[in-house]
Amino acid sequence: MTGLLPFVADLPLVDHHCHGVVTEDVARAGFEAMLTEADTTSPLGTSLFDSLIGLSVRERCAPVLDLPKHAPADAYLARRAELGAAEVARRFLRGTGTTDFLLDGGFLPDALTTTPEFGVLAAARVHDVVRLEQVAEAVLPGTTAEGFAAAFADELGKRAATAVGFKSIAAYRVGLDLNPERPTAGEVAAAAGRWLRTGNVRLADEVLHRHLVWTGLDLGLPVQFHVGYGDSDVDLHRCDPLLLTGLLRATRDRGVPILLLHNYPFHRNAAYLAQVFEHVFADVGLSTHNAGFRAPAILAELLELAPFGKVLFSTDAFGLAELYHLGTALFRQGLSDFVRAALAADRMSEVDAVRLCALVGHENAKRIYRLEHA
Amino acid sequence: MTGLLPFVADLPLVDHHCHGVVTEDVARAGFEAMLTEADTTSPLGTSLFDSLIGLSVRERCAPVLDLPKHAPADAYLARRAELGAAEVARRFLRGTGTTDFLLDGGFLPDALTTTPEFGVLAAARVHDVVRLEQVAEAVLPGTTAEGFAAAFADELGKRAATAVGFKSIAAYRVGLDLNPERPTAGEVAAAAGRWLRTGNVRLADEVLHRHLVWTGLDLGLPVQFHVGYGDSDVDLHRCDPLLLTGLLRATRDRGVPILLLHNYPFHRNAAYLAQVFEHVFADVGLSTHNAGFRAPAILAELLELAPFGKVLFSTDAFGLAELYHLGTALFRQGLSDFVRAALAADRMSEVDAVRLCALVGHENAKRIYRLEHA
Amino acid sequence: MTGLLPFVADLPLVDHHCHGVVTEDVARAGFEAMLTEADTTSPLGTSLFDSLIGLSVRERCAPVLDLPKHAPADAYLARRAELGAAEVARRFLRGTGTTDFLLDGGFLPDALTTTPEFGVLAAARVHDVVRLEQVAEAVLPGTTAEGFAAAFADELGKRAATAVGFKSIAAYRVGLDLNPERPTAGEVAAAAGRWLRTGNVRLADEVLHRHLVWTGLDLGLPVQFHVGYGDSDVDLHRCDPLLLTGLLRATRDRGVPILLLHNYPFHRNAAYLAQVFEHVFADVGLSTHNAGFRAPAILAELLELAPFGKVLFSTDAFGLAELYHLGTALFRQGLSDFVRAALAADRMSEVDAVRLCALVGHENAKRIYRLEHA
Repeated sequence: MTGLLPFVADLPLVDHHCHGVVTEDVARAGFEAMLTEADTTSPLGTSLFDSLIGLSVRERCAPVLDLPKHAPADAYLARRAELGAAEVARRFLRGTGTTDFLLDGGFLPDALTTTPEFGVLAAARVHDVVRLEQVAEAVLPGTTAEGFAAAFADELGKRAATAVGFKSIAAYRVGLDLNPERPTAGEVAAAAGRWLRTGNVRLADEVLHRHLVWTGLDLGLPVQFHVGYGDSDVDLHRCDPLLLTGLLRATRDRGVPILLLHNYPFHRNAAYLAQVFEHVFADVGLSTHNAGFRAPAILAELLELAPFGKVLFSTDAFGLAELYHLGTALFRQGLSDFVRAALAADRMSEVDAVRLCALVGHENAKRIYRLEHA
Repeated sequence: MTGLLPFVADLPLVDHHCHGVVTEDVARAGFEAMLTEADTTSPLGTSLFDSLIGLSVRERCAPVLDLPKHAPADAYLARRAELGAAEVARRFLRGTGTTDFLLDGGFLPDALTTTPEFGVLAAARVHDVVRLEQVAEAVLPGTTAEGFAAAFADELGKRAATAVGFKSIAAYRVGLDLNPERPTAGEVAAAAGRWLRTGNVRLADEVLHRHLVWTGLDLGLPVQFHVGYGDSDVDLHRCDPLLLTGLLRATRDRGVPILLLHNYPFHRNAAYLAQVFEHVFADVGLSTHNAGFRAPAILAELLELAPFGKVLFSTDAFGLAELYHLGTALFRQGLSDFVRAALAADRMSEVDAVRLCALVGHENAKRIYRLEHA
Repeated sequence: MTGLLPFVADLPLVDHHCHGVVTEDVARAGFEAMLTEADTTSPLGTSLFDSLIGLSVRERCAPVLDLPKHAPADAYLARRAELGAAEVARRFLRGTGTTDFLLDGGFLPDALTTTPEFGVLAAARVHDVVRLEQVAEAVLPGTTAEGFAAAFADELGKRAATAVGFKSIAAYRVGLDLNPERPTAGEVAAAAGRWLRTGNVRLADEVLHRHLVWTGLDLGLPVQFHVGYGDSDVDLHRCDPLLLTGLLRATRDRGVPILLLHNYPFHRNAAYLAQVFEHVFADVGLSTHNAGFRAPAILAELLELAPFGKVLFSTDAFGLAELYHLGTALFRQGLSDFVRAALAADRMSEVDAVRLCALVGHENAKRIYRLEHA
């Protein structure tokens, strides 16, 4: 009952949203700090290994490092150090069965592998997803209020030439309650002027986050949105995907995919949007590895309303090599549990089950990101 | 494990909220457009048969049309065309085991059967639910700002004579964050004046939607509210039933039932309201058929807090005859799974199980809508 | 499958949030009025025994009163009356396996046992949790606008000497969308002045509820917040724990635990907060007994993101002795089901399972409330 169906175990995956990996060795405190969305452990609580993801590391990652299942945390970390971070990364990344990784390199790039380095470690195809805000923040110092829009469009166009998609982190900066309308040139210039005058390169302006998204849509590449679950910088109640409803309605006739990332605990809301808007897609990355053996329950909730042609796979793994492995293994578990129960009750045929898994595992991503041409 | 308990299979049902059926043949594009809350398919996605409801059509509807379970979509639609829409409707509607259908005929009436036509097709009792906004929109052109309230009350009173309930679609027009207080005569006249001056017959005014509800309550018939899940016209974040809390508090002493329809993904919120407000009732129609084999999970969540005397059955089926069949079959499945698991664990007696099913399946609806006297 | 794992059945529990018990006999109407969060039954609905909690009373409480499982409600209440409320209370309280009860005596104290009386009935250790608003309301009549802050701090300091924690009911009075910043002395005096001028001793002022919390934090005792599910006085949409995000961010460096009580149906949101904020803890009390045999599903959702070092046990039982028994028994059931399924699938070791249960059952509470020193 707990193993994977063969066609799920062998399913090639496209991880349509993840980040680079840390190649330096990390001690226990550093490991725990990267394990969940908590910044650190605290004397008020206990180890972050006391969690579903902590149990999953010991269950599912320990054997990859030649340890028995459920090895204690300290033994696990000692073995990890003994093998070295590079070997650990190779083992975990190459064991995922992922053919293509789409990497958002926009967060803490100095601490992580670059996209080409990641490709070598993982022995897989890699593709760039360009973080809109990172480009804007790079462009700002060399431009003016009136020149910002053109400078940003120009630079984004250059970055688009070697990328497969864009990503917005409006959720982290201003929340998702974005005005549906495209800002006018005057509004953009005024907002850029305000931003320049702050002297702070960090973008947090509703008009500009929105402008970035529309500029991305002009270029025709899929636009990813961080939605829902993240670290303590997020105001989670401002990150419900339903807050994007107006913008989704305003952009539906452009034929450019919009991808709602993560979504937990609003994944049923995201599934609704994926059903009713032609250009909207959703995943449950990040919560998949954090929820450990509960991941299948979350995926099943997403699939209540989301058409199978609108659901994608991602890990949102960041930093720790274990997270790519867990995100992938737990996604496979969720998919296998879902179709296995349906097959057992004769709710779908095996042909249907294989098709569902192929769509969600890689076909949707290949179609949306045009990976055959990338 | 997947079959129905006998007393659930044989349970007479009252479908307290549905719509008419399309009696014209539909081609594949038209069928998919009516299958879910999506307006249409899109080249960005895949067929809407790639969904839990799509699988359920092929699993549960195909045999009713003499096809094997899991027949391919094209074969299914070919057989459907061969039988003709009227025969298809008869088969699906008469097989539901529904004794009484409560029909909201207020949306796209020209495309659907009338209530009497539906009764003949279904060979069942039919009852009218009057859409408040439809009556207001019909009354408006022949009245004045000052005359609107009286004209509406008069016309609604006439419609009430042959109806068993009212329905508000405030959710679709202004959301559910309605002011709890009854609007004054002056406020209603002012709002009607504004509406008349727009020259647009479509009502979307918080004061007036609220006034319609209070007028309905005056007449003593149960008032249904669209809540939650619907098509892309809905701003779903404005349709959380909790937004009605103030209005529910203000109306609880009137002794008139208020029925929260659909509710997904806010069905746990609706269950809370059904527990703490004497006059509030809830269902999970619409999501029941859309979620296919996940429907039992949704019903179970509703039943966490909602007393069994406050839960009703509806399909919210519209247009496609399959939806009445699926909404009913999946509701029975959910109810059967729920009580079967409880019986297996000795969490309730069989007497309790039978009582629960009778309440939810038909007794609550008969009591609330006074169907024995209808 | 439905029994408890031995180490869960024997697990000592700390109930970190409950209230006193009624020691007078209650008739059926009074019993139903205390059974759920509904104020009363209604002729529109049916008996509140028609609910998951009603079934659980008849399943799990009847045998404690020497009746067969599933005894009818009237037979149950007759036997209850025959034994008398005091004997009923003794049986239910002493059978919980709870070593320590933390009692919030601030609501309807005249109708309930005092903390010492409760200790005798339960034959267990008891500890006081002081309701911040009750102290403020007691202090108000004897002070002035300018004197309020000092008078409150002084009185709360006295109460803290014999208490283990504080509780805020801001949720019930103004909702949880509290300004993150500590109010200034001038703001507090101005708000106290407004309050004094109302002539109404009932506190409902955002500035003052917030001030009470900060004063409690100054004293270093854990601060509990009512969150989510409650009776019909709650505006549940204003009680999402995510609304506290700003305040939690502002208080995280003080090292004082904040405990989010109840949380349903926002328990996944609470779990997120417990993961990302070092000082935040969560439980699913109140919904545990109300949801009857669905309680395990709710606990499992909480544990998706909440680290095991951040989850506590409470019943939130109030008035009816049955609720302590049910809250405890259903929590044990949920915990047992959770770890049993994980053990069966080899998702954790038995050592892990025992540790998880000990943390959640009593260790976290003992550490946070420093009960070894209480």
